[in-house]
Amino acid sequence: MLIIFDHLNKNMHTQPTVEVCFSPKLYEDKFTNQNFVTVVADILRATTSICAAFDHGVERIIPVSGLEEAKAMKEEGYFVACERNGEIMDFADIGNSASDFLREDLKGKSVVFSTTNGTKTINMARDAEEVLVGSFANIQALADLLIQKQKNVVIFCAAWKNLFNLEDSVFAGAIAELLLDHGFSTVCDSTHGAMDMWHHAKSDLKSYLSKSSHRNRLKHLVSEKDFDYTVTLNSTSVIPILKGDQLRLAE
Amino acid sequence: MLIIFDHLNKNMHTQPTVEVCFSPKLYEDKFTNQNFVTVVADILRATTSICAAFDHGVERIIPVSGLEEAKAMKEEGYFVACERNGEIMDFADIGNSASDFLREDLKGKSVVFSTTNGTKTINMARDAEEVLVGSFANIQALADLLIQKQKNVVIFCAAWKNLFNLEDSVFAGAIAELLLDHGFSTVCDSTHGAMDMWHHAKSDLKSYLSKSSHRNRLKHLVSEKDFDYTVTLNSTSVIPILKGDQLRLAE
Repeated sequence: MLIIFDHLNKNMHTQPTVEVCFSPKLYEDKFTNQNFVTVVADILRATTSICAAFDHGVERIIPVSGLEEAKAMKEEGYFVACERNGEIMDFADIGNSASDFLREDLKGKSVVFSTTNGTKTINMARDAEEVLVGSFANIQALADLLIQKQKNVVIFCAAWKNLFNLEDSVFAGAIAELLLDHGFSTVCDSTHGAMDMWHHAKSDLKSYLSKSSHRNRLKHLVSEKDFDYTVTLNSTSVIPILKGDQLRLAE
Repeated sequence: MLIIFDHLNKNMHTQPTVEVCFSPKLYEDKFTNQNFVTVVADILRATTSICAAFDHGVERIIPVSGLEEAKAMKEEGYFVACERNGEIMDFADIGNSASDFLREDLKGKSVVFSTTNGTKTINMARDAEEVLVGSFANIQALADLLIQKQKNVVIFCAAWKNLFNLEDSVFAGAIAELLLDHGFSTVCDSTHGAMDMWHHAKSDLKSYLSKSSHRNRLKHLVSEKDFDYTVTLNSTSVIPILKGDQLRLAE
């Protein structure tokens, strides 16, 4: 929190802050064990797909970091979504595309979910006061909730195997802009950098992200329809939140 | 290198690549032990000051990571520039401001140099084929040399205690733009992000960097004159290069 003295009204008041973390490798030093809400972003594709799943009526998602754990839960009878390096694992029921979750038989059900970057990042963020899941699909609803909470926020980019990526960073800039427009403050260079990227991207997000290395890496695996969903803002108002070991809808 | 097939001339030719690394913490995984030239940037202040020092006639600079080593070299009789967290150490002769190096008695001399981020980063980069020192002061001369070399380039941002900073990232975007304008290519998201920042910054670099957390952290320690020098492009054509344990002028 930044503490502000209001000279006119002779009051002290606090401004919540927003910070951005560009990689899981940069998260530990600065952000763990402090008092803030973390928003995890893995735009291509885990957090976009999690929003799609809840929007479609999935009841809960269990994020699992390791392949062995995901496999064991499949053997226990869970429905499992699992991907590594963009490709569905052979033991899994589905991969991690948003459209994979749009099945009638998943409504009201639980899904175990394990991906290369996103679900590991969610699990890394557990020390935060709250962990929320963000994507362009739910960005305005998420910003509204954060503005209501008035707590410090860290946008945690899942990145690609720890390396900075454009799509998560641009999302971070987009939500930071919404928060700074509503009384949040920042002294974080990553937040300023992310907002610069968003300013370049926002007039044509799809074209902007076509230069993303990860988009090109996944091009043969992500359908045009899934990519269109990924870059469309505010198609849902669901906000997934981590409760214990499970993602649920925020109340 | 990207290999390009030229359909008109039926030739294969290679395009050197440019990549950006935003933090020492992200350098090890991807960049070590490969075949490339590394440009180290610690704009506030080590690499800017190193350029100023060579421009003023200093003969060689010995970058030293640890305080104890710097202190021992002082006891051996070396002239020592040493700073931590922006402040000169009590055993040192000078700190790490560009203007500290503009002394007549340093012309033709050796200086031992140890700083919070910059000199550690230079030492981390030793595995690269060549290590060059960059700043806004020598950016065009450096770009010209890199264009002449036609080797893959990594711009290595010293950052602030491993955390992303604006001033090094904006410099990376500036030199990446010069290289991409002259036949280099990139598939690196950090390079695209850094260039977005540079596009925002370039019309008024000084104002842009006034929002930098590090600039604010150092405000009471860096004079207006030193900051003006830092944000002025092409005041020198010196290019410091690491030769063994010492920085010398590139031939």
